[in-house]
Amino acid sequence: MAIITLTTDLGDKDIYQAALKGSILKLLPDVTIVDITHSVSAFNVPQAAFILKNSYHYFPEHTVHLIGIDTVYNEETRYIAIRYQNHYFVGADNGIFSLMFDRIPDEIVEINILQDLKFLHFPLADIFVKAACHLAKKGKLTAIGIPIIRLEKKMTLQPVVDQNVVKGSVIYIDSFQNVITNITKDLFTEVQNGRQFVLYFKRNESINKLSWHYNEVPEGEKLCLFGISNHLEIAINKGNASGLLGLNVGDIVRIEFL
Amino acid sequence: MAIITLTTDLGDKDIYQAALKGSILKLLPDVTIVDITHSVSAFNVPQAAFILKNSYHYFPEHTVHLIGIDTVYNEETRYIAIRYQNHYFVGADNGIFSLMFDRIPDEIVEINILQDLKFLHFPLADIFVKAACHLAKKGKLTAIGIPIIRLEKKMTLQPVVDQNVVKGSVIYIDSFQNVITNITKDLFTEVQNGRQFVLYFKRNESINKLSWHYNEVPEGEKLCLFGISNHLEIAINKGNASGLLGLNVGDIVRIEFL
Amino acid sequence: MAIITLTTDLGDKDIYQAALKGSILKLLPDVTIVDITHSVSAFNVPQAAFILKNSYHYFPEHTVHLIGIDTVYNEETRYIAIRYQNHYFVGADNGIFSLMFDRIPDEIVEINILQDLKFLHFPLADIFVKAACHLAKKGKLTAIGIPIIRLEKKMTLQPVVDQNVVKGSVIYIDSFQNVITNITKDLFTEVQNGRQFVLYFKRNESINKLSWHYNEVPEGEKLCLFGISNHLEIAINKGNASGLLGLNVGDIVRIEFL
Repeated sequence: MAIITLTTDLGDKDIYQAALKGSILKLLPDVTIVDITHSVSAFNVPQAAFILKNSYHYFPEHTVHLIGIDTVYNEETRYIAIRYQNHYFVGADNGIFSLMFDRIPDEIVEINILQDLKFLHFPLADIFVKAACHLAKKGKLTAIGIPIIRLEKKMTLQPVVDQNVVKGSVIYIDSFQNVITNITKDLFTEVQNGRQFVLYFKRNESINKLSWHYNEVPEGEKLCLFGISNHLEIAINKGNASGLLGLNVGDIVRIEFL
Repeated sequence: MAIITLTTDLGDKDIYQAALKGSILKLLPDVTIVDITHSVSAFNVPQAAFILKNSYHYFPEHTVHLIGIDTVYNEETRYIAIRYQNHYFVGADNGIFSLMFDRIPDEIVEINILQDLKFLHFPLADIFVKAACHLAKKGKLTAIGIPIIRLEKKMTLQPVVDQNVVKGSVIYIDSFQNVITNITKDLFTEVQNGRQFVLYFKRNESINKLSWHYNEVPEGEKLCLFGISNHLEIAINKGNASGLLGLNVGDIVRIEFL
Repeated sequence: MAIITLTTDLGDKDIYQAALKGSILKLLPDVTIVDITHSVSAFNVPQAAFILKNSYHYFPEHTVHLIGIDTVYNEETRYIAIRYQNHYFVGADNGIFSLMFDRIPDEIVEINILQDLKFLHFPLADIFVKAACHLAKKGKLTAIGIPIIRLEKKMTLQPVVDQNVVKGSVIYIDSFQNVITNITKDLFTEVQNGRQFVLYFKRNESINKLSWHYNEVPEGEKLCLFGISNHLEIAINKGNASGLLGLNVGDIVRIEFL
């Protein structure tokens, strides 16, 4: 059965989500619609990229992922559809795809199913839904758009690496108030190369042991681990790490390898 | 496949939504259930009417829309089912339908599938679900109720129109903090008749240009446009219009045509 | 069609819900997934037990209920699957099942589909989903685990009963701010035995009449009734009982029978 996931900042109280889902069901009554989230902060492209990048691969191949963030039309807007690792993505080329993919996708098209975008009111229902339903029915990308090869680039702060030091920053606070950094497990492991380390943050805080589970330290104590997104995370066992440690998006963390 | 949508004030943390969905699936295991929203403010009939009025038509014909707002039984309560533009609606006749429909529906019945309503505990599961599943299976309205012709009327503030002036009010603030008024595109266009206009609100604010897209003004600047509900809306490009302009539900706006 | 319900504290903004749902759909593309709630307070086992105990029976028999609360691995953790009244439950044996069931379940197994749990990252996707999908496909419990007979016990405050007095406490505040106590209808009816009663709470408040509907008193006035969970509930007709009466989880209520 066809699956379409939704990642948007539409919230859950207005007419927008219903307009989106109704439009999908009108074209494809048997589809399974899955909400990844509608609680992305308004227009927060990096946040949406982080969430979808770390969750799309849990879905079956050929799932279509519709991204409704920062999609309002202007003259430079390109609406695109992508195939990457046998998953399909539909969204505005606002930089989100450069944040999500580590390499050039297998196929990219600029969607051209509507002639005149100028008077478009709700691109999600008027363009994205049509493209997503076409792809969910195993239609070809080239039937809805013109192949392109370049994606809009959006930069986010990357960790700075030195022989003995990785300097990263907080990119996401989750619902449990765990503090997620931009330091990936791959990067950490490569630089660590078997050495001891100390993770420093805020003025006087540090952690020198990597945990596997959140409950490896007593309740209320801090730890660091790689969560399911494989990013280095600072947490407190059953506690609010962001609040108690005063860590927020943008804050710097620093790892010294001994 | 049959579709039932849900519009309620039940929230998303209690047992009520589960009781509702479980009851539907017990009767109709193959149905597609779509949440329009469960975040209507408690007992806010006009808010629910606004949301459903502006979203039901996105769904395929023959969708059944279950409305769970202000449904507690009392002696005057009538639970009704309606056919309107080949959509079906089930709810309490508390005035919501007079707010939703511009004309008398094609068919209205007072649901009579339960004899004694007095000891009814949860009308949504005990009555609405049965009626909705019957209709979703393409059952007839007359099989679950007695035809009636009058709907309970509920009044909301309507715009006051004069030759050169439309005086309206704010009826809804959406998740993006856009400010939505009770002035529809049809009314505006009719009174405007090609003329220039100035929209006044709060003490000193005004806008004299209608935008098509939210991003036609620089970020942080105010604009007005007709959103997907076709109601006149005051917004700030990527900003919080309600907060920054101090506009809330009930506030007056005034359009002068030149 | 197979149904899997989800009761978790994962929230609705992160990658966790998507990881869970995607993993289910990978194994069982045709399943119907129903969110009971993802808004349980973090690690709040009694709250999750209250919600699921009072809602699972609304679903068709053979529904599988996946419980994602307090599931992090430690050496004492047992992940279990249960059959009870022809419903299936999958979760961590952290005491939640002793709070949910009034008698020993019909069948309990300790899930043994993974050899080494020590490096488990996300038990919900890695173990619970596999067990739940197996059961949703009508697989046997004994195919995924070893029969056990004892459940971890968790105690919650139970009402104290005397000949003329029941002393209970507030266990839940719902989205409408209704105040739900641990006094069940069965207990109340048994001790009442046809007598008049006065329900006392806070310093000077009392109610001496049981209502059937929330609107049996004028708007803004307090009442008590048995809600759909069959627990004694203190409410205000169309008002915020918890806030206005100052009642919170843990507060004591006292019923005197005359």
